[in-house]
Amino acid sequence: MSGPDEFQVIAQLFAPLAQSFPGALGLTDDAALLPPDALAETVVTVDAMVAGVHFLPDDPPDLVARKLVRVNLSDLAAKGALPFAVLLAAAFPHGTSQDWLERFAHGLGQDITEFGIALIGGDTVATPGPLTLSLTAMGKVAAGRAILRSGAQAGDMVWVSGTIGDGALGLRAARGQLSLPPEHIAALADRYRLPRPRVSLGPCLVGLASAGMDVSDGLVQDLGHLCRASHLAAIIDAAAVPLSPAARAALDLDQSLLATLLTGGDDYELLFAAPSSATAPLLELAERLGVPLTAIGRMEAGSGVTVHDASGRALSLGQGGWRHFSATISGAGA
Amino acid sequence: MSGPDEFQVIAQLFAPLAQSFPGALGLTDDAALLPPDALAETVVTVDAMVAGVHFLPDDPPDLVARKLVRVNLSDLAAKGALPFAVLLAAAFPHGTSQDWLERFAHGLGQDITEFGIALIGGDTVATPGPLTLSLTAMGKVAAGRAILRSGAQAGDMVWVSGTIGDGALGLRAARGQLSLPPEHIAALADRYRLPRPRVSLGPCLVGLASAGMDVSDGLVQDLGHLCRASHLAAIIDAAAVPLSPAARAALDLDQSLLATLLTGGDDYELLFAAPSSATAPLLELAERLGVPLTAIGRMEAGSGVTVHDASGRALSLGQGGWRHFSATISGAGA
Repeated sequence: MSGPDEFQVIAQLFAPLAQSFPGALGLTDDAALLPPDALAETVVTVDAMVAGVHFLPDDPPDLVARKLVRVNLSDLAAKGALPFAVLLAAAFPHGTSQDWLERFAHGLGQDITEFGIALIGGDTVATPGPLTLSLTAMGKVAAGRAILRSGAQAGDMVWVSGTIGDGALGLRAARGQLSLPPEHIAALADRYRLPRPRVSLGPCLVGLASAGMDVSDGLVQDLGHLCRASHLAAIIDAAAVPLSPAARAALDLDQSLLATLLTGGDDYELLFAAPSSATAPLLELAERLGVPLTAIGRMEAGSGVTVHDASGRALSLGQGGWRHFSATISGAGA
Repeated sequence: MSGPDEFQVIAQLFAPLAQSFPGALGLTDDAALLPPDALAETVVTVDAMVAGVHFLPDDPPDLVARKLVRVNLSDLAAKGALPFAVLLAAAFPHGTSQDWLERFAHGLGQDITEFGIALIGGDTVATPGPLTLSLTAMGKVAAGRAILRSGAQAGDMVWVSGTIGDGALGLRAARGQLSLPPEHIAALADRYRLPRPRVSLGPCLVGLASAGMDVSDGLVQDLGHLCRASHLAAIIDAAAVPLSPAARAALDLDQSLLATLLTGGDDYELLFAAPSSATAPLLELAERLGVPLTAIGRMEAGSGVTVHDASGRALSLGQGGWRHFSATISGAGA
């Protein structure tokens, strides 16, 4: 992947993914050019993924590429931004086959088409280590309208899109660590391998959500980040957290999985706060987009996240998995 | 570097580097916000570096960080853009010490201050492999004025800034593979470890250069890229290529190093084409900025790069190192 190979890979596999964006200059220049924009802010994010850490080394290459795109688009959606471009930095292990690269580029192309974006730049290098990828993603949002983590108000309701916990259970499913019917195993593993970023929903939350982010580290941890940024506390009702049929089945078999569902990562759903006046428009939006939106709690004065069980009692330390989880949260205070 | 460690590193070491840019949101949100700009294009580039491939594993961590910044700023300078922000994706090996991270962040901070930019986003992850870094850099250039590789005209002169070949000799010097006086060894190794991107020069070339890029893969290869993008040929005069005193001393001892000087990478000088009418303003600019600018050849109809020796003969295949080099160039045709 050094010297001519790099140029060949770029020219043959990646340059077609830049065609729709003139400022990408066909990936034949040193940099890409974004046209002036007097009205919109550009929203920029970057995420890195390492084989064996963020995906399984034998995951299909097209799904690796698509996961890379999607985790980044999820960040943009969380800010209310519409994505338009990505840049790829890829360190490919020595001996990566042409077939692997083609399948990777194919997956990248699938999502570039699906989400209406373009690959506008990149760098491909060789590594003696594991496949290491980073993607910079860029989107647009009307000036001053981006949804930040810091805007929540006491009294706001806490909402999530879709279902929670499938990503974490999906990793176990992909590793053969769950005993569930095959259709549930397949559904969960698919959610782990191929996130569904809420690209359509995000921009529609502008003006409705007071604060927001995506759920990538785990619902409770991420809500903790939102609380810190907004200088507030949050109380959520565990029974209200929306679960997929597969996650519900897993929980019915093993109640201790509740902690995994609420604190596991890789959901890539949107988590946001909104005033109660936004409830009707949010439910209308959910109906219109076909994206479930569920109120799971509320923001309050104070700090930290409290999870209530079905009987309204706070899930406390000393309950197995929760002890470790709570210690982690304390340690993460930034 | 997973879980709380990641947040601590970001908060303690990297967040201060974001302070000057409000849209970085203190690195506490999912993405950064760039304000609208009605007049300028945003120029974006990304470069990846792997320990043992792009830098020596025992290179000082502050210099690793600064090299990462500088190779990217060099790309922006080549487009005539003034840099304003970078985003870092870093895969740190397990067991990377706090001391190493602090020195890395210190180097990053030095260059962020020196070049008047900000760190506006990032992602830090753990890797079982070598340190793998990628940096996305962003700059501004007046709309429609960016210097592309594709704008050269037949008859334009070919120019380079600074001196050529020090990066390639510097790698050998750093590895103890050159027999030269210690001051030359130190000067060359320093050039390899700490590029001097032409950040001040680049924006001043807008309106003077017809095409341009930076010299990162090697002078002749990079001029080949410019020729292809401009659909032209180039002829350069080897004797006109500016050399540092250290490179001159090395060449005096071993004439076969000429190929290394002209085709080695890591110079991070600017290579550009300009009409002869720009000669006087360019020489005035060189004087004003204190940056040497040297005309080394011209653009012509045709394709490919021809290098003339001191007697005006084309350096041909069959001259040792040149054969391999020529084969590489042929293979790199994109």
